[in-house]
Amino acid sequence: MAEAERPTLEELGEIAVLGRIFPRLPEAEATLLGPGDDAALLAAPDGRYVVTTDMLIHGPDFRWEFSTPEDLGWKAAATNLSDVAAMGARPTALVVALAAPATTPVDVLESFADGLRLGCAQLAPGCGVVGGDLSTSDVFTIAVTAFGDLEGRAPVRRSGARPGDAVAVAGELGVAARGLRLLFEQGRADALRADAHAVGRQLRPAPPIALGTVAADAGATAMMDISDGLVLDARRLAQASRVDLELDDLGDDALRGGEDHSLLATFPGDVPVPEGFRRIGSVVAGEGRVLVRGAEYDALGGWDPYEQWDGRLS
Amino acid sequence: MAEAERPTLEELGEIAVLGRIFPRLPEAEATLLGPGDDAALLAAPDGRYVVTTDMLIHGPDFRWEFSTPEDLGWKAAATNLSDVAAMGARPTALVVALAAPATTPVDVLESFADGLRLGCAQLAPGCGVVGGDLSTSDVFTIAVTAFGDLEGRAPVRRSGARPGDAVAVAGELGVAARGLRLLFEQGRADALRADAHAVGRQLRPAPPIALGTVAADAGATAMMDISDGLVLDARRLAQASRVDLELDDLGDDALRGGEDHSLLATFPGDVPVPEGFRRIGSVVAGEGRVLVRGAEYDALGGWDPYEQWDGRLS
Repeated sequence: MAEAERPTLEELGEIAVLGRIFPRLPEAEATLLGPGDDAALLAAPDGRYVVTTDMLIHGPDFRWEFSTPEDLGWKAAATNLSDVAAMGARPTALVVALAAPATTPVDVLESFADGLRLGCAQLAPGCGVVGGDLSTSDVFTIAVTAFGDLEGRAPVRRSGARPGDAVAVAGELGVAARGLRLLFEQGRADALRADAHAVGRQLRPAPPIALGTVAADAGATAMMDISDGLVLDARRLAQASRVDLELDDLGDDALRGGEDHSLLATFPGDVPVPEGFRRIGSVVAGEGRVLVRGAEYDALGGWDPYEQWDGRLS
Repeated sequence: MAEAERPTLEELGEIAVLGRIFPRLPEAEATLLGPGDDAALLAAPDGRYVVTTDMLIHGPDFRWEFSTPEDLGWKAAATNLSDVAAMGARPTALVVALAAPATTPVDVLESFADGLRLGCAQLAPGCGVVGGDLSTSDVFTIAVTAFGDLEGRAPVRRSGARPGDAVAVAGELGVAARGLRLLFEQGRADALRADAHAVGRQLRPAPPIALGTVAADAGATAMMDISDGLVLDARRLAQASRVDLELDDLGDDALRGGEDHSLLATFPGDVPVPEGFRRIGSVVAGEGRVLVRGAEYDALGGWDPYEQWDGRLS
């Protein structure tokens, strides 16, 4: 498409850009007041609300050579919805702050909004965007804050696992990491040809959002979103609960791969885990370790943005 | 101080950095669950909550040659608290996402946290930080989402002004803009010597947060935070309410200067404006204009980040 047909943010100005984005954003059923005032107003029927926030930054978190703007909108929704679900809550709304270079074509933001709408519709129907902020930055940056409704449930924390509980997972393990490896090795087009499923999961994660409330209702004693890899996140749960987790040997890819945003939960050991979850181990007395085949699994299982980002901005 | 004594984010790693920041952050009285799980849990006693989000980006929004990290923490709190207050709500909590170059000394983030704590303590006692996110970016970026409690009040919107209402302001006008002009002209040290009050207000805005609920209780028909300049924001209120606003001639500095984060409100014309507010004009029938001395005031009165940012990153 000719550049002349793609007006940029600085050419259109903030008001016109917002006018193009707003109609594409998903509406939230919990909205009492949406955009247009200094703040939005949301319903919290049980007198409490769940809150989580997360940034996606060009370079460490996504790259335009791999992600389309629509992919990015989907991923920004999915990763935050997942944190809400992991508390045992139903996601209700997002606010989205976005900073982009002033030379960014406005259609990039329109497609990003489409991705937010598709992600919410697919993963958490009824959840929508109730507010946001637009700024300029040399680095394309997104900050999403997500909200959820516990609907009277007690929140499911990381710290409640007890010896004798079953360890269970809902969602895939290691698939998004396989997709990322393919993207780095082959680029987007060839990677999609080699394994469209894995690449698709890396670019548009499909966390089992609706199973968060299912787990809470089934009596989950602890739960969290697996964002940085099963073993690394399981260790965080083990440490918070002051127990050890014995996991089945699922293979290094499943044990270490991050970004699937599957749910890791523990359930009382004397009842079956709820539908949608599969048992992958047991909670035993201990001190915050993850054991596989009886030995502590201490291979690198995660991602520290300050230590491991390679600084590439390709 | 020798660099060796200032460990950076990449040297310490995320866990250790968070361990240094958390103890410095202000606690929120509304917290039911704070950091440590996938999401925080907050109280919403009246079954609703107010939400607003805003980014501060190095370059367009702040510059290290002018602001200390503590200034920046204060400003990040103040600008968001102000949007909550402008709805007639009491600010209850913030979540703060921060992205910094991996080579940033950790003491910069510690001082930023101190600024958040000082700002909350001074402007909105009881409000605190309940969660956040740390990332890496070449551009130092902050995204704050703020929450508030209407305590049973109706929200005060921009759209409720009616002909016959009084137009009133709480807080200063044009002072922060004078401070910014001095900073650009003279640099921080000389600007502070020339006008410490104005420079201080630019770097650490002091919006009249507590007057937001006072205005709502006094029957304010419309209200908003003056972030981009009195005339520009008054025009937004006039347009939302489908009225004209006749303002006293307060001088160009007061009419145009932004970033004071004072409160602009309209009140029924037959009763005195509440203490802390001063009357600066009247609402008349009209179509969204701002009039000064009987003529439309159409000098530039604001700031569009996409059109006006000069791209300087000094």
